[in-house]
Amino acid sequence: LGLDPRTILWKRVMDMNDRALRNITIGLGGTAHGIPRETGFNITPASEVMAILCMSSSMEDLKTRLGNILVGYRFDKTPVFARDLNAAGAMAILLKDAIKPNLVQTLEGNPAILHGGPFANIAQGTNTIIATKMGLALADYAVTEAGFGADLGAEKFMHLKCVAGDLSPAAVVVVATIRALRHHGGISKEALSQPNAEAVAAGFANLQKHIENMQLLGLRPVVAINAFPNDTDQEVQLVQQRCLEMGVEAVVARGFANGGQGMQDLARAVVAAAEQAQPWKPLLEAGWPIRQKIETLATQYYGASGVDYTPEADRALARLNQINLGNLPVCMAKTEKSFSDNADLRGRPEGFRLTVRDVEVAAGAGFAIPILGTLMRMPGLPAVPAAEGMSIDGNGKISGLS
Amino acid sequence: LGLDPRTILWKRVMDMNDRALRNITIGLGGTAHGIPRETGFNITPASEVMAILCMSSSMEDLKTRLGNILVGYRFDKTPVFARDLNAAGAMAILLKDAIKPNLVQTLEGNPAILHGGPFANIAQGTNTIIATKMGLALADYAVTEAGFGADLGAEKFMHLKCVAGDLSPAAVVVVATIRALRHHGGISKEALSQPNAEAVAAGFANLQKHIENMQLLGLRPVVAINAFPNDTDQEVQLVQQRCLEMGVEAVVARGFANGGQGMQDLARAVVAAAEQAQPWKPLLEAGWPIRQKIETLATQYYGASGVDYTPEADRALARLNQINLGNLPVCMAKTEKSFSDNADLRGRPEGFRLTVRDVEVAAGAGFAIPILGTLMRMPGLPAVPAAEGMSIDGNGKISGLS
Amino acid sequence: LGLDPRTILWKRVMDMNDRALRNITIGLGGTAHGIPRETGFNITPASEVMAILCMSSSMEDLKTRLGNILVGYRFDKTPVFARDLNAAGAMAILLKDAIKPNLVQTLEGNPAILHGGPFANIAQGTNTIIATKMGLALADYAVTEAGFGADLGAEKFMHLKCVAGDLSPAAVVVVATIRALRHHGGISKEALSQPNAEAVAAGFANLQKHIENMQLLGLRPVVAINAFPNDTDQEVQLVQQRCLEMGVEAVVARGFANGGQGMQDLARAVVAAAEQAQPWKPLLEAGWPIRQKIETLATQYYGASGVDYTPEADRALARLNQINLGNLPVCMAKTEKSFSDNADLRGRPEGFRLTVRDVEVAAGAGFAIPILGTLMRMPGLPAVPAAEGMSIDGNGKISGLS
Amino acid sequence: LGLDPRTILWKRVMDMNDRALRNITIGLGGTAHGIPRETGFNITPASEVMAILCMSSSMEDLKTRLGNILVGYRFDKTPVFARDLNAAGAMAILLKDAIKPNLVQTLEGNPAILHGGPFANIAQGTNTIIATKMGLALADYAVTEAGFGADLGAEKFMHLKCVAGDLSPAAVVVVATIRALRHHGGISKEALSQPNAEAVAAGFANLQKHIENMQLLGLRPVVAINAFPNDTDQEVQLVQQRCLEMGVEAVVARGFANGGQGMQDLARAVVAAAEQAQPWKPLLEAGWPIRQKIETLATQYYGASGVDYTPEADRALARLNQINLGNLPVCMAKTEKSFSDNADLRGRPEGFRLTVRDVEVAAGAGFAIPILGTLMRMPGLPAVPAAEGMSIDGNGKISGLS
Repeated sequence: LGLDPRTILWKRVMDMNDRALRNITIGLGGTAHGIPRETGFNITPASEVMAILCMSSSMEDLKTRLGNILVGYRFDKTPVFARDLNAAGAMAILLKDAIKPNLVQTLEGNPAILHGGPFANIAQGTNTIIATKMGLALADYAVTEAGFGADLGAEKFMHLKCVAGDLSPAAVVVVATIRALRHHGGISKEALSQPNAEAVAAGFANLQKHIENMQLLGLRPVVAINAFPNDTDQEVQLVQQRCLEMGVEAVVARGFANGGQGMQDLARAVVAAAEQAQPWKPLLEAGWPIRQKIETLATQYYGASGVDYTPEADRALARLNQINLGNLPVCMAKTEKSFSDNADLRGRPEGFRLTVRDVEVAAGAGFAIPILGTLMRMPGLPAVPAAEGMSIDGNGKISGLS
Repeated sequence: LGLDPRTILWKRVMDMNDRALRNITIGLGGTAHGIPRETGFNITPASEVMAILCMSSSMEDLKTRLGNILVGYRFDKTPVFARDLNAAGAMAILLKDAIKPNLVQTLEGNPAILHGGPFANIAQGTNTIIATKMGLALADYAVTEAGFGADLGAEKFMHLKCVAGDLSPAAVVVVATIRALRHHGGISKEALSQPNAEAVAAGFANLQKHIENMQLLGLRPVVAINAFPNDTDQEVQLVQQRCLEMGVEAVVARGFANGGQGMQDLARAVVAAAEQAQPWKPLLEAGWPIRQKIETLATQYYGASGVDYTPEADRALARLNQINLGNLPVCMAKTEKSFSDNADLRGRPEGFRLTVRDVEVAAGAGFAIPILGTLMRMPGLPAVPAAEGMSIDGNGKISGLS
Repeated sequence: LGLDPRTILWKRVMDMNDRALRNITIGLGGTAHGIPRETGFNITPASEVMAILCMSSSMEDLKTRLGNILVGYRFDKTPVFARDLNAAGAMAILLKDAIKPNLVQTLEGNPAILHGGPFANIAQGTNTIIATKMGLALADYAVTEAGFGADLGAEKFMHLKCVAGDLSPAAVVVVATIRALRHHGGISKEALSQPNAEAVAAGFANLQKHIENMQLLGLRPVVAINAFPNDTDQEVQLVQQRCLEMGVEAVVARGFANGGQGMQDLARAVVAAAEQAQPWKPLLEAGWPIRQKIETLATQYYGASGVDYTPEADRALARLNQINLGNLPVCMAKTEKSFSDNADLRGRPEGFRLTVRDVEVAAGAGFAIPILGTLMRMPGLPAVPAAEGMSIDGNGKISGLS
Repeated sequence: LGLDPRTILWKRVMDMNDRALRNITIGLGGTAHGIPRETGFNITPASEVMAILCMSSSMEDLKTRLGNILVGYRFDKTPVFARDLNAAGAMAILLKDAIKPNLVQTLEGNPAILHGGPFANIAQGTNTIIATKMGLALADYAVTEAGFGADLGAEKFMHLKCVAGDLSPAAVVVVATIRALRHHGGISKEALSQPNAEAVAAGFANLQKHIENMQLLGLRPVVAINAFPNDTDQEVQLVQQRCLEMGVEAVVARGFANGGQGMQDLARAVVAAAEQAQPWKPLLEAGWPIRQKIETLATQYYGASGVDYTPEADRALARLNQINLGNLPVCMAKTEKSFSDNADLRGRPEGFRLTVRDVEVAAGAGFAIPILGTLMRMPGLPAVPAAEGMSIDGNGKISGLS
């Protein structure tokens, strides 16, 4: 095939947090033991296969997407896809059971479908299209989740999953906590448990931008205030009042304390919202080049004043253009702690510039991944291994697990 | 702990035949990503944990053995065991379900316990002591297997498993095939399916030595002739006659063709043998140094004229003496194709010398491993991957698996 | 010493352009062969030892500087210097002959001292202080060179060499070519040999900024127009006229064509300038933190509107502060093709921002190195090796060298 | 060219004892930085180029030999020589001055030619053919040296250098010391300085075999007893008497104490021997396969009872046969401390077997290298670097060199 081993993008995965496997040299020891090259391990949820499984609408689609994985480049710079290795069929066979959703139940006996878990940082962070469609087919209401804040989770849910699966949500819930609003209002970690209406008022700017973003997509969200013991009425009412001024209902959700009972108010508000459902409006057009998609999200959705590209990112974009992947959807890889790419900029930052450090590609999943920071695909373990304190006695009684 | 990373003996394992992972350099990329060192992956059955599980008589014993794993050496050359890392408890927790035998049944409805599968080349090649004892407790007769020929399988079964588990078999079956005797009689691979009584007569020398070896251990074996379609009566009778001359019954076993029905003759012979059971006599004494154990096996059991040690083996033995492991039992790592360490020496070779290239240690499993050749702990895949021809259609129908 | 091998900054050097040695893993093969770690080779002129030799004023100073080399960090993050390894004495012995200047002569018999050649991209790009002082002691006029344009060469010559050696030049020559002014006036490479007074007029903005920069340092430069055959009188006079308007004399230098004879006009102008010598005025103050030095050069000397720092650069600066090297002089590592860090911005760019990607340190040479781009410390060879065409016959006659 | 990077045999060299460079992985960091592969550095005298320079009879021969260097193998297992890379011409140019002998003088004013120094362990251990022929052309007598004992030095001098250069020595001197004979007589290192005639008598067996070996080659050697202060007359006379019984003159050489004056007796004996010069008779025939050459040397020249080959050595010999290098001359790589491959077997061991661990090839130098032990091509440095104690003061006065 002429595959240049130095260009292989595909990494092995393992479900073990083993930092020493992040960067390795393999194929050493002579001609019987492979070709020497640099690579590394990721953990399983960071695998493009996970992202693909969740983006697939059928076994046929799964096979096509697996075949579309970009493996690397030939010495003549042309791309090699998994289909060129005749690997897609065997990969699909390995996934023949994995593609089927799993039905479980909640503590209160409600049915729940668990299916797929791609990382929210470098992938779409939401479950399979197949499971969502199965839920919609089986029940009056199907509720699903999108990982991280609405700047990442909701945006990717809409522009990636809903576009690929031809879905449109009847209602959207933005989850907030008084504690997080205090944080966005400038309160330090130590003081976050103390009531502070002033900080909540300041921090509301963050929630406000999330609500505006939902409205930008043509959605009318319900805000769920996830209740904590030290929330004060004053703080909660402040948030509800401000939401109301934006035309949005904010409901206290007491599921953690009271189970289904505590969620009834929220459920009623969501049902009401769903009855007024409107089709959503994408912010990004499919035909746009990747840069335009990035810049539109950066300025309109995150509030940045502009976007800078490192030379690596420029080169990556040029390479994607050369192999006709220059108009892929984008799956932004940005910190979940700020609208910006700086985790310390809380609230609703403005005037900042985003730096695109690199652009990776998940051609099988069907998106480009602009990298706006340092991302971990193989977590580490604590300095003192938790294993140290664990034991099991002769009767099988385990101690030391916390 | 002062552990010298260059001396770490412990390898990662993975259940995937990936030759490029045999020799790798890990921990690259800077201070956040571990310490650079050379290591590699083995496949799971080659892990010392598998050997330990099969040698353990209880959860307590398992924990002790896991703690005895030799991880490496400090910069001052003193050994570091898994217990020094406080890792044994957590490892035992991971094995809390694995330590329990699995009950399955044969096609004819007989109960069978499946439990443990250490490699026969570098480990003891036989199932767990716990499963064997469970079988003995639950039935009148418990039958188990020891991998490879009797020079390796039976010898390790007796000196490792029976010693550790305080077991003594009531009867022993040596399995032979007419085809293999033709091979040991000098017939080339292409002609092995053709009847050749002369070759069988010559090749019997190999079986004869295996029978003598059983007798050397105080056991009176039954020979099972595993029937093949092109065996001739002349050949079979020749083997039976020669066995009889050695005081041993040889029975044709037709299990492959006729199931339990075809095994009844063998079963009756084994029952008869079991009724005359004698305690076995070890060839090796526990207190002997490793060299004496190796040399006794080499000369008395394999028929060698002597043993040579490479400088690596000399150094390894000296190191084991220094850390008080100089009298461990031995688990010979030798080719299964010959009594010698040369796979091409068929029949009953004599006058050859064995070369010990290295001596490894499985301190948790409780044995030293004299290395008499090149051993594979991570198999490779064929030049053309089998995956190439596989596919699955939209209905989940798989093709291309053979 | 507790030196963390992953933090060792010191690279080996070799005088061979061998790209495969840029990034290597060493110390493999076991305990007898060093400690595994990642490192690489640079070529000799990129060694800090070369920079140190050129910055040293005496053998004592050389020893001190060699001892100040930052080798790496301990596991506890404290720095390890070459003096901690007791390596400075032996290194100084190796340099005992190298520290002595070499006297050679020009084709016309003038004495010339050749001594030291640090890279102009990552080091100071000018010869030894000892050689310069020897020249000043031996002759009425000592002329020396500073590599790259005046934005790099002259700036480093003044702020690094003159400060360290307590030198002040009596006169400064800025070398220009009509060809380069055409280039800065926007002419493409193919058309650079064609006279184009308009382009020269436009490109003069570049020379103007260099002259202004000299004046900013309190120096009154002479401009040498290095004559080329296709310079036109109109172009030359245009440059001379513009220089005159800035109060600077521009003289045509014909040394390439006419040797010493062709340089007499320039020599007379320099002598005249030297007779009106004024002490120079540093733009940077020694006590300033590194950021202030970088930003002052960026805005006042290069014409940038501001400076951005990557996270790597921020971390590197924090680390230098921690080890009390936060106020070192700076040795800018910037492209020589533009006042900016973008080689394509010709002429006199304005409004651009500089990005500091990293900050390295040459603690022995005595400066921090802000990295503003990709720098090559081990050049490569052409795709088809020049060696292919070379030969030598039996009489020692060489062919194939071009 | 299709060169498989994993098979490249050619290593870089450096004149620095840097053990961490013995085993390295290079070409890391991506497509701009070469191809990843495992390799290492040797020191310069271990380079095949040194061996080639010393085996060459002219510039033309040098070029041919450089072109014959075996660089590695293609993916299809065919060999790649330096000539296939068009590298021989450029390499020869680099050696155009090195090929010319250097004339120096001794303290007494005698001319001496210094030219070439290949390792005696893995190469021929003697100077260039060109220098030896120049010496023969310029003087009545030319004296040269062959490194290590006569089992290695003289054998290689004759079978490699004399065959390649069509030389035949007029006389041979075997150098012995009373001290070494005590050692071969079984005396421990501590007691070697004490007179011990009995040990000398026993140790003479070693010298006797060297003398016999010379006679086996058709040479009549003179023995030089290199005088030490604590030699006794009794010991010296014993050696002289025993030599006489073998028909060989043994002369005391006092060059170390008395210079040329002290060597006159030896010189007279050598002149007398040279006047009776006979052509030498090779022990090995050029057309023999490598195994026959090894086994003839082992049994007739070293006194071994036979030769064993590791699987690596068998494979290496098969590979040399495949590329038509199966009849190369051999350059034995054996310890210089014993006739056997075990450095501890002193005197004149018998009945031992030699183990050939591997067979390397220096196809340009023109010989195969049977490896009989562990050979160092990149020496290490002491645990405490000698550099630690070195210094130089401001006047250039060096201290700490011993």
